[in-house]
Amino acid sequence: MQIKAQIKEAFAALETTTPLVHHITNYVTVNDCANVVLAIGASPIMADEESEMEEMVSLADALVLNIGTANERTIASMLKAGSVANAKKIPVVLDPVGVGATAFRSKSARLLLDKIAFSVIRGNMAEIKTLAGLEAKSSGVDSLEDESDGIIIAQGLAKKFNCVIAITGKEDIICNDTVCYVLRNGHEALKKVTGTGCMSSALIGAFLGATHKPLISAILGVLSISIAGEMADKTKGIGTFHTSLIDVISTFNASVVIEKAQIYSKG
Amino acid sequence: MQIKAQIKEAFAALETTTPLVHHITNYVTVNDCANVVLAIGASPIMADEESEMEEMVSLADALVLNIGTANERTIASMLKAGSVANAKKIPVVLDPVGVGATAFRSKSARLLLDKIAFSVIRGNMAEIKTLAGLEAKSSGVDSLEDESDGIIIAQGLAKKFNCVIAITGKEDIICNDTVCYVLRNGHEALKKVTGTGCMSSALIGAFLGATHKPLISAILGVLSISIAGEMADKTKGIGTFHTSLIDVISTFNASVVIEKAQIYSKG
Amino acid sequence: MQIKAQIKEAFAALETTTPLVHHITNYVTVNDCANVVLAIGASPIMADEESEMEEMVSLADALVLNIGTANERTIASMLKAGSVANAKKIPVVLDPVGVGATAFRSKSARLLLDKIAFSVIRGNMAEIKTLAGLEAKSSGVDSLEDESDGIIIAQGLAKKFNCVIAITGKEDIICNDTVCYVLRNGHEALKKVTGTGCMSSALIGAFLGATHKPLISAILGVLSISIAGEMADKTKGIGTFHTSLIDVISTFNASVVIEKAQIYSKG
Repeated sequence: MQIKAQIKEAFAALETTTPLVHHITNYVTVNDCANVVLAIGASPIMADEESEMEEMVSLADALVLNIGTANERTIASMLKAGSVANAKKIPVVLDPVGVGATAFRSKSARLLLDKIAFSVIRGNMAEIKTLAGLEAKSSGVDSLEDESDGIIIAQGLAKKFNCVIAITGKEDIICNDTVCYVLRNGHEALKKVTGTGCMSSALIGAFLGATHKPLISAILGVLSISIAGEMADKTKGIGTFHTSLIDVISTFNASVVIEKAQIYSKG
Repeated sequence: MQIKAQIKEAFAALETTTPLVHHITNYVTVNDCANVVLAIGASPIMADEESEMEEMVSLADALVLNIGTANERTIASMLKAGSVANAKKIPVVLDPVGVGATAFRSKSARLLLDKIAFSVIRGNMAEIKTLAGLEAKSSGVDSLEDESDGIIIAQGLAKKFNCVIAITGKEDIICNDTVCYVLRNGHEALKKVTGTGCMSSALIGAFLGATHKPLISAILGVLSISIAGEMADKTKGIGTFHTSLIDVISTFNASVVIEKAQIYSKG
Repeated sequence: MQIKAQIKEAFAALETTTPLVHHITNYVTVNDCANVVLAIGASPIMADEESEMEEMVSLADALVLNIGTANERTIASMLKAGSVANAKKIPVVLDPVGVGATAFRSKSARLLLDKIAFSVIRGNMAEIKTLAGLEAKSSGVDSLEDESDGIIIAQGLAKKFNCVIAITGKEDIICNDTVCYVLRNGHEALKKVTGTGCMSSALIGAFLGATHKPLISAILGVLSISIAGEMADKTKGIGTFHTSLIDVISTFNASVVIEKAQIYSKG
């Protein structure tokens, strides 16, 4: 199916299903993640007590795991939640925030990747390179690096983990084991708001809950933030820009996204 | 006393006392809860370390317990905080977010209800039905159901727990053991912002800290959000609407609320 | 060097270094702290798992410890993080939120002060008085008291802990062991937004990461919020005012701050 048809189908699925997206995520950007999921037309739930993961995940249509402020307790909850999701065929998104920066994050990511089958993994170049076992210099959670080899890395990792890999940055690279797309939307102001990556991952969860299709969900989750970045109000400063991102996303539909999207197939 | 006179009295009490409202609440909507409490003219404090609950609660004029992202540790803190509040006659609000969705939440709510006397319990229909021991299908934390039997459920529960029950939804039902009110304010956009229920509960805490009167506090906490929903800017999207809710509440006084309130006595 | 020259130098350092500021902070205001650090031109990271503190702190240019919603687990992480920072000569800011309100907070602050050398400590008058061992009535986390003796207290504490002390309130008092400044910027609306104190501390961390100069960093962190409070939009209410604070800070440069700053040397 053509990308445009898939975008239409995904927004239609979102509207008819209002998927419930369960997050175990960081406390820095959690409010924005919940609000962006509501803005796109899905329903968020955040819960991280391990003893309720089995039931909570079972209610959900998608699960998003984000290690931004993870600790030993919440990693255990993520492992439980992911295993339940896999057993129930509920798709899971991984946002490996800051992986590579510390042994704890690397160990946690390795554990999650060993025990859970993910539908989509989204990170910046440094994070995805770390997952690929390459060396990468981490500069906080927003590092950007040269993307020339991004497609090779993303495709290799997509094959290794049998999932969609999304590398976000100035350009976004989204690959599964056979196809690859480069997205050229976005605006540099997005780097000045904390959590735009987390919000992309949350939105991938929303589309995944509606469609169960990892590739188009990853494309649409990433596009939603980058197109919103283009359209949002930049006249007053980054406080208003931040608010305006949610405004814009709350008015999205398939036509707007199709009109604005800069999607390039890379075979 | 007439409702209008009680509203005037409550806003006057808020102005003269600036009550300190202690919250043990979820990390998703906590910033909005603090800001809405400031906006109405009270003072928020958030703290959840069990070993400081005795002293912290003792400083407060009201306590709000919200189980939205509770875990074993914070439930223990809630139990301690509630018992201190009861001993010191500090009124307590319960927001049983998502109760019924998991055994952990149901067990936690039962423990809280067994050990703590609440002044007000606020939830959506599914949550209140669960507390009433009836069956209710949970759809995340924002579920709405038919409200025809709401008054019966609310009054039954108000008698059982000797407190005010507030069921919020398209219409809001607020009952104590003898009287019941239906509130017909609100706007559907409120469902698109996470935490409007949490904010209502926080505001109930603010009015309760000022007045020590559960019924009018529940009415005013719920009305503040629903009237703000009517008055807030809806022209740009839900980001601006969210910000505008706090704007509107920060300009509230008794006259505005009396003018807008749609309160119907149900005997 | 003159204050004006130091302000120019500090903004220039911020632009050339984009310092990474690591926070272990409260979950109420953490999103605003991250966004304000981005707005001023630095890069935030929030992480609190003890086992990753050594590596995470080592990546940072400054560390900010805020006990607003601390618990036993996060105090242990703060102690670890602070000791690593000291060993690596990474400057550390303490925000002793609500100290004096509970024995847990007082004990935690004492532990932090015993084990960690801080570059800057910022609090309100009640908090700083508590640290100075004087009696102070705590009213939540935003208490203000008479500031007449503030300079004596601040200078005494600056000598005792060999650091810069910043007392924020209607006027701000900033002292090291030899000099003292009073800042007369600000706006009363700042008291209606939760976390303006936390944001000041985060901004002190940003300037400290860039300059490694505690006195000018404390002055600029505090001034940034109080000047933003003067310049931010107050026409709509405190929701928009809150957003506008970030807008204004995102447009700051040395010239704006020099033009607006009301800094008085107190010898």
